[in-house]
Amino acid sequence: MSNVNTLPPGIFAAADYIDLARQALEEPVWHYLACGSGREITVRRNRGAFRNDAILPRLLRDVSAGHTRCELAGETLAHPVLLAPVAHQSLFHGDAEFATAQASAATDTRMIVSTLASRRLEEIRPHCALSPWFQLYFQPRREDTLDLAARAEAAGYGALVVTLDSTIQSPGLNALRAGFDTRRDTDPVNLSTYPGPQPTQLRRDQSRIFQGLMQHAPGPDDLRLLLAETRLPVWVKGVLRVDDALMLRDLGVAGLVISNHGGRALDGAPASLDVLPQIRAAVGDDYPLILDGGIRHGGDVFIAMAKGANAVAVGRLQACALAVAGPLGVAHMVRLLREELELTMAQSGCASLAEITADLLQKRPE
Amino acid sequence: MSNVNTLPPGIFAAADYIDLARQALEEPVWHYLACGSGREITVRRNRGAFRNDAILPRLLRDVSAGHTRCELAGETLAHPVLLAPVAHQSLFHGDAEFATAQASAATDTRMIVSTLASRRLEEIRPHCALSPWFQLYFQPRREDTLDLAARAEAAGYGALVVTLDSTIQSPGLNALRAGFDTRRDTDPVNLSTYPGPQPTQLRRDQSRIFQGLMQHAPGPDDLRLLLAETRLPVWVKGVLRVDDALMLRDLGVAGLVISNHGGRALDGAPASLDVLPQIRAAVGDDYPLILDGGIRHGGDVFIAMAKGANAVAVGRLQACALAVAGPLGVAHMVRLLREELELTMAQSGCASLAEITADLLQKRPE
Amino acid sequence: MSNVNTLPPGIFAAADYIDLARQALEEPVWHYLACGSGREITVRRNRGAFRNDAILPRLLRDVSAGHTRCELAGETLAHPVLLAPVAHQSLFHGDAEFATAQASAATDTRMIVSTLASRRLEEIRPHCALSPWFQLYFQPRREDTLDLAARAEAAGYGALVVTLDSTIQSPGLNALRAGFDTRRDTDPVNLSTYPGPQPTQLRRDQSRIFQGLMQHAPGPDDLRLLLAETRLPVWVKGVLRVDDALMLRDLGVAGLVISNHGGRALDGAPASLDVLPQIRAAVGDDYPLILDGGIRHGGDVFIAMAKGANAVAVGRLQACALAVAGPLGVAHMVRLLREELELTMAQSGCASLAEITADLLQKRPE
Amino acid sequence: MSNVNTLPPGIFAAADYIDLARQALEEPVWHYLACGSGREITVRRNRGAFRNDAILPRLLRDVSAGHTRCELAGETLAHPVLLAPVAHQSLFHGDAEFATAQASAATDTRMIVSTLASRRLEEIRPHCALSPWFQLYFQPRREDTLDLAARAEAAGYGALVVTLDSTIQSPGLNALRAGFDTRRDTDPVNLSTYPGPQPTQLRRDQSRIFQGLMQHAPGPDDLRLLLAETRLPVWVKGVLRVDDALMLRDLGVAGLVISNHGGRALDGAPASLDVLPQIRAAVGDDYPLILDGGIRHGGDVFIAMAKGANAVAVGRLQACALAVAGPLGVAHMVRLLREELELTMAQSGCASLAEITADLLQKRPE
Repeated sequence: MSNVNTLPPGIFAAADYIDLARQALEEPVWHYLACGSGREITVRRNRGAFRNDAILPRLLRDVSAGHTRCELAGETLAHPVLLAPVAHQSLFHGDAEFATAQASAATDTRMIVSTLASRRLEEIRPHCALSPWFQLYFQPRREDTLDLAARAEAAGYGALVVTLDSTIQSPGLNALRAGFDTRRDTDPVNLSTYPGPQPTQLRRDQSRIFQGLMQHAPGPDDLRLLLAETRLPVWVKGVLRVDDALMLRDLGVAGLVISNHGGRALDGAPASLDVLPQIRAAVGDDYPLILDGGIRHGGDVFIAMAKGANAVAVGRLQACALAVAGPLGVAHMVRLLREELELTMAQSGCASLAEITADLLQKRPE
Repeated sequence: MSNVNTLPPGIFAAADYIDLARQALEEPVWHYLACGSGREITVRRNRGAFRNDAILPRLLRDVSAGHTRCELAGETLAHPVLLAPVAHQSLFHGDAEFATAQASAATDTRMIVSTLASRRLEEIRPHCALSPWFQLYFQPRREDTLDLAARAEAAGYGALVVTLDSTIQSPGLNALRAGFDTRRDTDPVNLSTYPGPQPTQLRRDQSRIFQGLMQHAPGPDDLRLLLAETRLPVWVKGVLRVDDALMLRDLGVAGLVISNHGGRALDGAPASLDVLPQIRAAVGDDYPLILDGGIRHGGDVFIAMAKGANAVAVGRLQACALAVAGPLGVAHMVRLLREELELTMAQSGCASLAEITADLLQKRPE
Repeated sequence: MSNVNTLPPGIFAAADYIDLARQALEEPVWHYLACGSGREITVRRNRGAFRNDAILPRLLRDVSAGHTRCELAGETLAHPVLLAPVAHQSLFHGDAEFATAQASAATDTRMIVSTLASRRLEEIRPHCALSPWFQLYFQPRREDTLDLAARAEAAGYGALVVTLDSTIQSPGLNALRAGFDTRRDTDPVNLSTYPGPQPTQLRRDQSRIFQGLMQHAPGPDDLRLLLAETRLPVWVKGVLRVDDALMLRDLGVAGLVISNHGGRALDGAPASLDVLPQIRAAVGDDYPLILDGGIRHGGDVFIAMAKGANAVAVGRLQACALAVAGPLGVAHMVRLLREELELTMAQSGCASLAEITADLLQKRPE
Repeated sequence: MSNVNTLPPGIFAAADYIDLARQALEEPVWHYLACGSGREITVRRNRGAFRNDAILPRLLRDVSAGHTRCELAGETLAHPVLLAPVAHQSLFHGDAEFATAQASAATDTRMIVSTLASRRLEEIRPHCALSPWFQLYFQPRREDTLDLAARAEAAGYGALVVTLDSTIQSPGLNALRAGFDTRRDTDPVNLSTYPGPQPTQLRRDQSRIFQGLMQHAPGPDDLRLLLAETRLPVWVKGVLRVDDALMLRDLGVAGLVISNHGGRALDGAPASLDVLPQIRAAVGDDYPLILDGGIRHGGDVFIAMAKGANAVAVGRLQACALAVAGPLGVAHMVRLLREELELTMAQSGCASLAEITADLLQKRPE
């Protein structure tokens, strides 16, 4: 945990924060942050997916009126980079989510606050300028889920983002090997008033996974109830399949985050970028899709847009910048990412996000 | 050879047993275990094959009644992971096959006992709960082969698994270089009463392979005789071709183990996973197929199922766990593998093995 | 900066100059030279692209009258290797562009002098034998651009090469990290009489890229004006798209340099070689195309020709040879590259560049 | 240069001779042997090509009458492995070609003696049992070429193998860097009575390659003359194109060696294995084709056969074995390679070379 709030020298790219974070963080926390689940197959796929397409520069275009304004579900954002919900931010900086919220305010960036934040959602809210969104994990008891949603609504959050792909989560293997201990090292204060899952007594022929952890997994009715009870738009995060995307859209979900939880949920899942085009094709042009997973550079943002995303979210970059330089670091990282995107747009002759179309990409030969 | 029977700390995944085994075993034995034949092309293919498909998670499925029960040739197993026949287990632990059998009993796991076991098949049997299967190598004399089969039947084994892909076997090159010596280091007690192959006197224009070692190789008639003489179901292990699979099914073979002997038989053979779909397509949905080769994680088991396997078998993981922590190690490894499978199923919304279908996989782009 | 003018021993291939330059140059300059922009994705693509095709040797052809004469836009060159415009050559050798010009004269090689040369274009000209071309960056003020063009024409340059793909340029990240500072380390003397870009005062909602740097980016009218005002043939450098190529040809541009600025402009752009065939197919056989990017060996020149280039240009090899051995080095590098090309031609039975056709290439299997 | 004639311990595979040779040889000679031309692109392709196909084992086949007898141009050889023409064998062993010839006699192996042998062809012949073939380089003067052919015929050689793909040869770059000097280190005694190429006086506009080295390159008429003048069957080595193959067959050439000179001629050429199928398809089933390039294991021989070769030739393995253990080493290497082939045949159920068909291979997925 750090309290540094100054920019270190020698940062020229958003991704530079990664190496610096590795140096700044204690090893268990670094591994907790960097790890994916299992063998990290999906972590590698996320990054590798951005190398399969080249960007074709266009010449002599006038981009002097260019901008990165992003229309997302009826709102206009200054740029399409969101701060993904990152849990337990006190691991990375003494001011935790307050620091991130300040960076969000300084850079016109939408922040998505995690259910597992280290600070109370009501206290985070005032640090934000733009109304943040609240990432919601379904709780074992329905009333607690609805209470969390009501609290977010009351506190002035702009939307709920329900994460559905990680009903079971555990730290990556390297984090466990390095001694990271979730109970000891984290404190999800937003859940402190809820009872939490009751330990299930399992028979010998029952499974710790199916009859244990998955007892509390939400089903379609839980989502329907939430949609009925909240006035906030509800997004769903963790979608990788076309049929799930269509089902969720038809249920009234406001938009989707195409995501594999940064490779932290099902190891072996495809890169989120690789499923984006088929989901975009299925849901049509007008349904909002956010992509996360593997974004390290503004050029990656460009590629995600060209493949059908309306916006992107960054998690690891955010936590790394927070660890290295607190609110200033997160703000700086966002600015660098945005300028990298603008540079890519300028060089490919795009004056707005709407001009970033699939024909600007070229598949690599072979 | 080890007699350790306690779990070492820091094991979070079934595959963690591999590195620990490398440390626990003397070098010649480690190389004997780890090696494939020849240049180990097939060993690498086995592992690599599991990286060609991604698993698509599904959301909001109810898996609270989920289980891994496996219907295999009319029987119901608690889970689809079998202990592949591993020869010479006294190399890995002082209790040899007895230890493995105890782990099998503790975890409801089917064990397949090797012809080349370090303990007598009659003495291994009582350590098992679930009736084990007996892996059978054809012997130079037909009567010895039938005697082995009769002994397995008499001792209460549930099936025979005839290995046909390794009529010629020798330790891998690294094992030979490290000084592993099959005659000195192993003692196949189940064969002690049979005369063994007579040394052939070869003429100069004859081949040590064709006129020597292959003289004793079984032909279709040997298999037909065995099928006629035994009351046990007969499986065949080592099948990689569609025509062989159909021929064996038509001969009355009970099921097949799609296998390249863990890369220890014909080096250059394809990954067993890569031929599985075409064999499944040829034999139809109802003919039982077990896959081995390259499985290191429950996610690999999932992929094998999605491509048409009814169950899988693990050899190297088994021997590694045995070397590291004896019966406890093998039991722990099986439990970890099973939980990894359950986790993958839960995250992809599969409540039973039957729901693991090919549409849950997505080929990697390119 | 070096003043060495003798050939070091042990150079057997043009590419040998690269390793020697790494040793000869101070680290910031080496990184400035070697770096691409961003993550150097495009730098790697440029080099990798030449490995995707094999060259099929042909037997028994008579090449005793063979030559490398190159018809380019109505002129005949001794060979198809041009010296690409390399900026700031005083970084590499005390005689800077004078040295390169001397090498050009010694080897019948066309030199393209950069707008950002360290020596005045009027003073470079006399060192060349063959009339050099002048690479032109559009200046913030139109009159300055036209003045540069007029000076080149007056000094006896043979053509203008307008670079359009790098309206924004900055040193690569490794150069910045190593302390390279463009303002301190370079002096573009040819621009000393022009005012340079006026610092723009940006509002908070304006972008340093779009409303700042891109204000001065040229548009089609700038190019049309130049075409109307100069008597020199005008080439365009930095073309990677078919539509841009057709548009430029139709505007009256004399020919194109298919280039991604050696991976120094838009990182993420495709290898220039990979887009060459589609551009050649679109513009027809008679429109002149030069390729640069990734050429390290005469075999690469051959492949570029087979894919549709009329000539190639080398930048990094040129700067490396200049750094290692001054004019002698550049001349030697050109000779080596040319002999490597001749050797490849001889072995594939080509007696002239026109005989280097696409059917001499074979795509790699898979 | 070595005179060792005993087998070192620890050799279990033919390819083991490579590492031992690296230790046994002085560095310049090792590099001369191991190097390819240029950047060694083709050397790597040769080896990599054998990894693109898997071999499908077949079960229950009777191979007890199996053999490796090879029908080649009307003759029956004990096995399909030939000793490729390797120049300058005194670099590798004191007995040079005499040692290789003795190994050939001991293992029923056809040896192809190089024009550049370190021993007189007439003196090598008696060491062979099976009549060797003579590899012929065209000499600057036609009468010298015909004299060489006549000498080979008179000495009892069985065929001529005209190498056409390396009219220009030079040691690889690493050999040059290590100080290898062809003139100093080698002595092509079979050419001592011929005048050799006259140094050409080149004008400034002439090319050392085209007007120098290629003046002496043979054309179709040279080949026709040789075919008319000799009574020996004439093979051509170095063919990679379908059109060349058909042209040579139609000229009356007895058979072809599909080869890229082990990656020592045109760097950038495809793997010889990769062009074999298309050439086999073009010339039909009955025209004899030998393949060399990249063979390190009997499994590679099997793959070459399955893709259309009638026999294979090994060069580097031969020279390595010669360097390590003289005639005994070469004989041992041949025996290992043959047994590796036999093992592969046995495991895939092939009792003769004719049964090694393309359907035994399976392309790797992706």
